[in-house]
Formats: sequence, structure tokens, C-alpha cells
Amino acid sequence: MRIQQIVTRRYNLPLAEVLTDAKHGNHTHFELITATITLEDGTTGTGYSYTGGRGGYAIKAMIEHDLTPFLMGKDADDVEALYEAMQWRIHYVGRGGIASFAISAVDIALWDLRGKRQQQALWQMAGGASDRCKAYCGGIDLNFPLPKLLESVQSYLDRGFNGVKIKVGQPSLQEDVQRLKAVRELIGDNIAFMVDANYSMSVAQAIEAAHAFKPYNLLWFEEPTLPDDYHGFKQIADATGMPLAMGENLHTIHEFGYAFDDAGLSFIQPDASNCGGITGWLEVAKLSQQHNIPVCSHGMQELHVSLVAGQENAGWIEVHSFPIDEYTLRPLVVSDHLAVAPSTPGIGVSFDWNKLDSHHVV
Amino acid sequence: MRIQQIVTRRYNLPLAEVLTDAKHGNHTHFELITATITLEDGTTGTGYSYTGGRGGYAIKAMIEHDLTPFLMGKDADDVEALYEAMQWRIHYVGRGGIASFAISAVDIALWDLRGKRQQQALWQMAGGASDRCKAYCGGIDLNFPLPKLLESVQSYLDRGFNGVKIKVGQPSLQEDVQRLKAVRELIGDNIAFMVDANYSMSVAQAIEAAHAFKPYNLLWFEEPTLPDDYHGFKQIADATGMPLAMGENLHTIHEFGYAFDDAGLSFIQPDASNCGGITGWLEVAKLSQQHNIPVCSHGMQELHVSLVAGQENAGWIEVHSFPIDEYTLRPLVVSDHLAVAPSTPGIGVSFDWNKLDSHHVV
Ligand SMILES: [Mg+2]
Ligand SMILES: [Mg+2]
Repeated sequence: MRIQQIVTRRYNLPLAEVLTDAKHGNHTHFELITATITLEDGTTGTGYSYTGGRGGYAIKAMIEHDLTPFLMGKDADDVEALYEAMQWRIHYVGRGGIASFAISAVDIALWDLRGKRQQQALWQMAGGASDRCKAYCGGIDLNFPLPKLLESVQSYLDRGFNGVKIKVGQPSLQEDVQRLKAVRELIGDNIAFMVDANYSMSVAQAIEAAHAFKPYNLLWFEEPTLPDDYHGFKQIADATGMPLAMGENLHTIHEFGYAFDDAGLSFIQPDASNCGGITGWLEVAKLSQQHNIPVCSHGMQELHVSLVAGQENAGWIEVHSFPIDEYTLRPLVVSDHLAVAPSTPGIGVSFDWNKLDSHHVV
Repeated sequence: MRIQQIVTRRYNLPLAEVLTDAKHGNHTHFELITATITLEDGTTGTGYSYTGGRGGYAIKAMIEHDLTPFLMGKDADDVEALYEAMQWRIHYVGRGGIASFAISAVDIALWDLRGKRQQQALWQMAGGASDRCKAYCGGIDLNFPLPKLLESVQSYLDRGFNGVKIKVGQPSLQEDVQRLKAVRELIGDNIAFMVDANYSMSVAQAIEAAHAFKPYNLLWFEEPTLPDDYHGFKQIADATGMPLAMGENLHTIHEFGYAFDDAGLSFIQPDASNCGGITGWLEVAKLSQQHNIPVCSHGMQELHVSLVAGQENAGWIEVHSFPIDEYTLRPLVVSDHLAVAPSTPGIGVSFDWNKLDSHHVV
């Protein structure tokens, strides 16, 4: 069925409070960029990407000026072929960065259409291993004083989650260690506990930190150093035995390939909003299986629940502090500590357009 | 001196004829994106980037919405600090792709201002080794029938150049070999001869081609396979002894680092329009010296002449088929087979705004 129209929108969505991590500074808003594709029979599918507040105009411009003219009139059914064609179409200005975000939004819309036309839910199309998966809450809480941090962690448990992640990268390692100690004491031994440095540390600093974090039995240490430094990750893993995770800053299958081969990872965290949509995410999931590494996710919990649940080697989805799911008709569902994938045909994410409307920025 | 205003423009510049390579299809236009910075004392500097016809709107959007608000009021003099700050500012949607193009245009404008304020020409600021360098013409000529190809190559010699490059990637290797044979016969033994596959070959195909190209004494074989496949490049180099070159598709210092370490290159070809401007280009040049590899360039001859000339390990600049220099007040100057850098303070590239005006597209 042919593509008749693509409408792209950009929303600037406010956070309830200012959130801070070690490398991106203060977050007051996040951007949501939606792409709605209409087929010639009137069927519509919506995909999306998001950012920490920058780059959204460029993503929208690329969808509107470079992808839309190319896709108009094309057959929407062969999603993988369109994915490849889009990658080549913008290859010279692409291979990662904005191009990956733009292709992601369009690819997710194509999967929404595929699911609606085939009457299949995303978790089924994505592998079908299960309709639910493990989920943890990831805080952007570097600037929270300790009492507030503990309150925030407690709120995750109260909401039914059995995994929590906090930011690290305080001015001194001692402060980070104190926070880890306090959180582990609060949550007890049976809750999964992760930390995330947003690549604020050198390899040497990360090795020192990983040793100091050992007593708190972390499930993983996320992005200790620059995501580009695959060998640096390996050094940290080898020197400390600490399980490492990354993926939110890998945007091409080549970058993931190097990470799997060289970085000594224990978990991989692709984000379908910036690694080529569902097609790109599933390519990474395939590689993760070959490398025997559980596949997790970053952000966009309302969508990733289906993708991760579908995998035989499912890890944990992150329930991110950018609450995209609050702008959908079905915010994330948690049951018995597990996130439950939607059963509706398509990607199972329908935006509450009225709620979004007031945040629409041209 | 503080930044008071940044004006960004996008031009769609027509080519005299349709040009084709093995991976990007037909080119009818190229995009020029200019960024003009005005300081509070009224001094202006202009930088720019370009594309093969796609991505320009996204580059412009990123400069206008993400970089300009950040730079306004900042001190323009510490170019390297602003470069770092811009990279971090858009890190989440960056590290290559559109972000590298956008930062490049702004960074080049900052260098234009630096040169004007310090009364220094770019070749001096860039190292000062010489004010001239070797130059070859690079054709986008895959679709030229043989007689036209030879005419085109002859025109390079007539214009005073002593190096020529043609595209390879014809339907059969035999056709490529025939074209190489004819060109070498035309130009004789003393003209440098390169070929460029635009990564249209698998590693196995490239090895076969490199063997077949041997009799024609190539200075280099450019982008035989995917630029992301550093180890594939090394396999080709090791299996054939053919000197390899790439760089136009590497956008971050990390990508260049991996290419230097793993790809077995004989030449590196960074493009200041897409590797972080002059600051990014000079970082690559520094690495090239450490790796004992001549530093060349891709595209934008009117600017790269100064950058390459300034280096102790200068290679060749490419005189590209996108004639940006025809829209400047000083198209590339060639003397005794060498390209001569402009001596005017700043980057030495002043656009003919009247000539550009009719191609301005909002
Ligand atoms: Mg993270
Ligand atoms: Mg080339």
C-alpha cells in the first residue's frame, strides 16, 4: 500500500522539575518529534523520536525535506527495504547523529502500519518470546540531595518496580559511594541496583569508582566513560570485573558491532528512537543474541516494553524520567514487577493529541 | 570580543551537468550552508559547509536552533573552547552526522574572525609550513562514456593540474580496468592517478579490483569499501599492497582515531566542512603526523588549500567537482602545478553574495 502523506510535528514537553546528569547539565524540557504516515487507503501509523531538548528542529527538517519527498508514493509494506533505502539516501550526511533519529521516527511509523495491517502487536512482531519483561526506574537525579534521592528511589518501589538506577559523577567519589550505600540500605538485597555516569569519568577514574562501588552489588555500571572508547570500556571491565552497560549513544549497526566486539559489555541498551527505529533495534537485538548479552533499552518505555519482551535474551527496560508515556492513551503498565506490553495491533503507542497540542512548537 | 549575531543561509547550487558516483546516484545540485557571525565591534566572519544535495535544512536548523542561542554573547576568541562546548552542547544528538556539519560551518566562521582580528592568513594559522600544496582534480564521472571521460581528464591537465582521480564501480571490473588503462595511456607516467569507489565494493571485490588495478600505478584507491569497516580496509591493504585513502565520511576524532589505528591507510582525507571545521581538521592533521600519513582533503578546495599547505606532512588537496570556489571572489589559484593559498587575513574565502543570491532557498 502506497504512502500518501507524512506529517511531522515537534513538541517541547516540560519536566515537572529540573533534572541533572553528569554530562548534559540541566534538563527542563524534552523534545518529542512525531511522524504520522497516511497510506492511500487512509490507514495511519505514527512513529516518534525524542531528545534531551536539542536537535529536534534538525530531526524534523530532515524528515520533512530529505525523507518525506523520497518516501511519497512508495510501498509501505517492505519496511526493511525502505529502512535500507533511507540510510543510503542520507548516507553522506548520516550514519548516526540526527539521521539516525530521523530515520527512527519514520521507521517506527512504518512498523505501526505493518502491525495494524497484519493485526499483530509489536511484541509478537518483535520475536514473540513474551508479552512482558523486567523493568527498572532510571532517575536523572545527580542534583538531588540525599534525602530527596532516597524519597525518589522509594517512589519507584512504591510504584511496583524491583530495579532502580541512580546517576553518579558527584564532585568526589566519596559522595557517590555514600549515595550508593544509602540507596542499597534503603532497597535491601533483593532489588536490582544500577548506576549511570553518563561518561563523565576517565578510564582511570572509572576503574577507581568501579572498585569503590563493589560492596553495593550493582547489576551494572552504565557509560562509565566515553561511548566512543570501546577499548576503554574493556579496560574497565577487565580491571574490575564490574558488569558494564551502554547503548543510548550508539546510533549505527557498525557502532554496536564495535561495542559488542571490543567493549567487554555485560548489557546492551539500544534506543529505538536513535538507532534506526524498530528495524535498527531488532538488528542490534540479533547481534546481542549472537554475543550472548541480554538486550535492554534506554528511554521510551511505552515502546521498548514490546521490543524487549519479544526477545529470548530479554534484559531490563529502563523506565526513563522523560515521561513520554504520560502523553499516550496507555501509560506503561506494571504487574507483578513486570512491564506488560500492549496487545493492540501496531506499536501499541497512541498519543493523546489533545494533551500534546498545547506543547506543539513549529 | 562578544558574538552579537549569527545569520545562517542555505543555497541550492546547480551543477553544469548531472554527475554520478557508485553510491550516491545522480547529483544535479549541491547545497551550500553559510554561517556569518558578527561581533559586537561589527567584525564579521563567514564559515560554511556543503552537502551532495540532502541534509542542508537539518544543518541550518541545528545552527539556528541549537548552536546560535548558545553562542550569542560568548567570547569569539577562544575558538577551541567554543568548539568543545558546541560538541558537548549537542552531544546526545551528535557525534557525527549533521552535528559535525553544523559545528563545522560555525567553527570556520570563528577562524575567519580569528584571522581577521590577528591579521593572519589561514595557511599561517594552520601551521605555516608553506603557502602552496599539491592538487589533483577529482571527477564525479562514473556515467561518462570513455571518450567523455578522457576529455574530462585532459581538461584537468589543460588547467595545469598534475594529478587526476576518476570514479570506479562500473557494472563489471573489466570496464573499470579498461577506463584505468585508457586514462593512464592518456596522462603518461608522470601524472598522479587515483581512483575512488565510493564504498561500492565488498572487501573481496575490492581485493580483486586492487589486484587488477596494479598495472596502472595508482597513487591511491579511495574508499574501496564501507568507511565504517576499518578492519576491512586493512584486509584489502594487506592482501594487495594497494595504498588506500579515506576520510570524507569520517566525522568525529574517534572515527579518525580508529581509521588511523586499524584501517591500514596510506592517505587521510578529512573534510573541514564535516569533521568539525578547522579545529576538527587540525586535530586530524595532528593525528596524521603522529601516524606518519600525509594529510589530504576532500572537497572545498578554496579552503583546504590553506589547511593542507600549512602542514609539514602535506599530501594533496582534491579539486572537487562541486565548484564552491566559483561562488567566491578568488577561485582556486594554480601555479606550476601547485595550488596557492590566499594571503588575506582570515580564511581567505569571501563569497560573491550577489552570485549566490539567486540560489538562496529558505
Ligand atoms: Mg544512561
Ligand atoms: Mg571520494
